[in-house]
Amino acid sequence: MPAKTDESLAKRLLAGDKRALARAITLIENDDPAGWELVREVYPQTGRARIVGLTGPPGVGKSTLIGALTKEMRDADREVAVLSIDPSSPFTRGALLGDRIRLSDHFLDSGVFIRSMASRGALGGLSEATLQAALLMDASGKDDVFIETVGVGQAEIDIVDHGDTVVLVLMPGSGDSIQALKAGVMEIPDIIVVNKAEHPMTETMVREIRGVLSLGPAASWRVPIVRTEAAHGDGVAELAERIGEHRAHIEAEGTLEERRARNLRNEVLELAAARMRRGLEARVSDDPEIEALLERVVSRELDPASAATELLERDGG
Amino acid sequence: MPAKTDESLAKRLLAGDKRALARAITLIENDDPAGWELVREVYPQTGRARIVGLTGPPGVGKSTLIGALTKEMRDADREVAVLSIDPSSPFTRGALLGDRIRLSDHFLDSGVFIRSMASRGALGGLSEATLQAALLMDASGKDDVFIETVGVGQAEIDIVDHGDTVVLVLMPGSGDSIQALKAGVMEIPDIIVVNKAEHPMTETMVREIRGVLSLGPAASWRVPIVRTEAAHGDGVAELAERIGEHRAHIEAEGTLEERRARNLRNEVLELAAARMRRGLEARVSDDPEIEALLERVVSRELDPASAATELLERDGG
Repeated sequence: MPAKTDESLAKRLLAGDKRALARAITLIENDDPAGWELVREVYPQTGRARIVGLTGPPGVGKSTLIGALTKEMRDADREVAVLSIDPSSPFTRGALLGDRIRLSDHFLDSGVFIRSMASRGALGGLSEATLQAALLMDASGKDDVFIETVGVGQAEIDIVDHGDTVVLVLMPGSGDSIQALKAGVMEIPDIIVVNKAEHPMTETMVREIRGVLSLGPAASWRVPIVRTEAAHGDGVAELAERIGEHRAHIEAEGTLEERRARNLRNEVLELAAARMRRGLEARVSDDPEIEALLERVVSRELDPASAATELLERDGG
Repeated sequence: MPAKTDESLAKRLLAGDKRALARAITLIENDDPAGWELVREVYPQTGRARIVGLTGPPGVGKSTLIGALTKEMRDADREVAVLSIDPSSPFTRGALLGDRIRLSDHFLDSGVFIRSMASRGALGGLSEATLQAALLMDASGKDDVFIETVGVGQAEIDIVDHGDTVVLVLMPGSGDSIQALKAGVMEIPDIIVVNKAEHPMTETMVREIRGVLSLGPAASWRVPIVRTEAAHGDGVAELAERIGEHRAHIEAEGTLEERRARNLRNEVLELAAARMRRGLEARVSDDPEIEALLERVVSRELDPASAATELLERDGG
C-alpha cells in the first residue's frame, strides 16, 4: 500500500523526523513521483523557515562557515538544515569531502539536518530540485535552511536566489569574484563575507569590495561586509546578526513577500519548461527520422534553426 | 520586395561585405525571421573558419589579447572576426568600453570585423545567438572567428564551447578561477593563458595551474600554459602557434568533426527547447486563469510542481 506509506512519510516529515526528511529528499533527487506528491502535500506548511543562500568560489571555507553559523543558531535554540549543492566532478570528491568533515561536528545533533545534492543528474534541473528540497526542510520545522553552492558566477547566484537572503563568501585573494561583481557579470548579494580574515590582505580586500559597492545604485539596504575566521568562530555572531537584520529589513519593506512571490512564479515556469524539454528529448531519442535530421545539420545541408523548426513541427509543437 | 533584398544580403555576405555581415548579425540579435532565413541560406558555406572561444574573469585583458592576436593573424594574411559577448549591466559600460579601445586599432582594416552582442535581451538565448552570429562570420569568409565571453564559470565555458578551441585567460591573482578548475566547477579548457605576465606572481600562478592540470585524467592533448603580456604583444605569437597546434591535433585525432557534430546536435535541441519555452511564456502572459494559478502558489495553496503540471495541461502539453 504505497499511498499509506507516503501519507505516513508526510506525517513523519511534518513532525520533524530526520529519516523521513532524508528519504523525502532522496525521492526528489531521484525524480520519483512520490517525492513531488509529498511536496504537494506538505506545501501549505511551508514559508516559515528563514532560507539563506550562501555562494562563493571553492576554497574560501564556506562549509566551515556554515558549520560555525549552525553552532550559532543552535546556541539560540534554532533548528537548522543545510543543503549543499555539490558539483559532481571526479576532481572534486576529495576536496568537498574534506570540507564536509567540519560540518560533521553536528551529525549527532538531532536539531541539525545536513544533506548534499549532486549538481548533475537531477532530472528536473538542479535549481528546481534545490527548491523542492528546501521546501521539504522548511515543512519539517527547521528554523534556518542554509543552501550552499560552489562557484563564481551568475549561475550559482541563481540557485541561492531561492533564499530570502543571499550571502557571498570571499577570502583575501578573491580577485576574480571582485572583478565579476564590478563588471556586473555577477549580481550584488545581500551580505558579503570575507572569510580567512586573519590573512594580511584582508583590509585590501574589504576596500576593494567597498569600492565595487560604491559604484552600485543607492538602495535602502546597505550591503554589510563581515570579516570572519570561521575555523575559530570569529565574526560568526556578527554574520548571524546581519542575516537577522537583513531578514527584518525585507520584512519591514515588504520585499520578502515580493521576492518569494517572484521566485515562486519563476519556479512554476522553470518547472514547466524543464518538463517540456525533457518530454521533447525523450521523444526524439532513438527516433531514426530525427537522427537523419541531425545528420543533415552535421553535413551542413540544413541549418540548426531550421532543423529545430522541423523537429517541433514533427513533434506537433 | 524584401525577398530580393535578403537574397542580395546573402550574396553580399558570402562575398565578404562587412556591412552585409553587420546587418545580418543585427537581424539575429533582434530575432528577426529574416536573420534566421539568412543563416539557413548561407549555412552550406560554413564550417571553414577556425573558431576560437576565449573566456576568463573580467579585467585579465582578454580584449587586449584578442587585439594582439588579431594583429598576429593579419600578419599571416588571415581574415579575422571578433564576437564579444557583452554582459549588459549598467555597471559594466565604462569598463568594457575601455577595453574595446584596444580592439579599435583594427576598425579601419577591411580584413577585420568586430562586433559586440548583449548577453541579455537576445530572445532565443545568448548561446544560440552566438552560434548564429559565428556561422554568419564563417560564411562571410573569415579565416579566424574569435568568440569572447566574460566570466568565471561553467556558463561562460558553455558559450565559448561553440569554438573548436577553448582558451581560458587568467592573470596572476586569478585564485578563484584556479579553485574553480581544481574543484571541477569549471571544465579544463584546451589552452590556458596567463596574461599580465610581467607581474612578479606569474610563476606562482603557472605552478598552481600545473598542479591543477596534473590532477586531471591523462589525455592525448597536453594543455599548454602560455605566458603573455598582451599590451606589448609578448607571447602572442606563441599563443597563435598553440592555437594552430590544437587545431591540427583535433583534426588528426578526428575530434574536430566529433566536437562540431556534438555541438550542432545540442544546438538543435537547445533551439527547439528555447522556442517551446518562449511559446509557453507568450501563452501564459496576461492569461487571468494562469494568474490565478500563480496566486495560489504564492499563497501556499498549490505547490510549484503541481502548478507546472496544471499549466502544461491547460496549455495542451
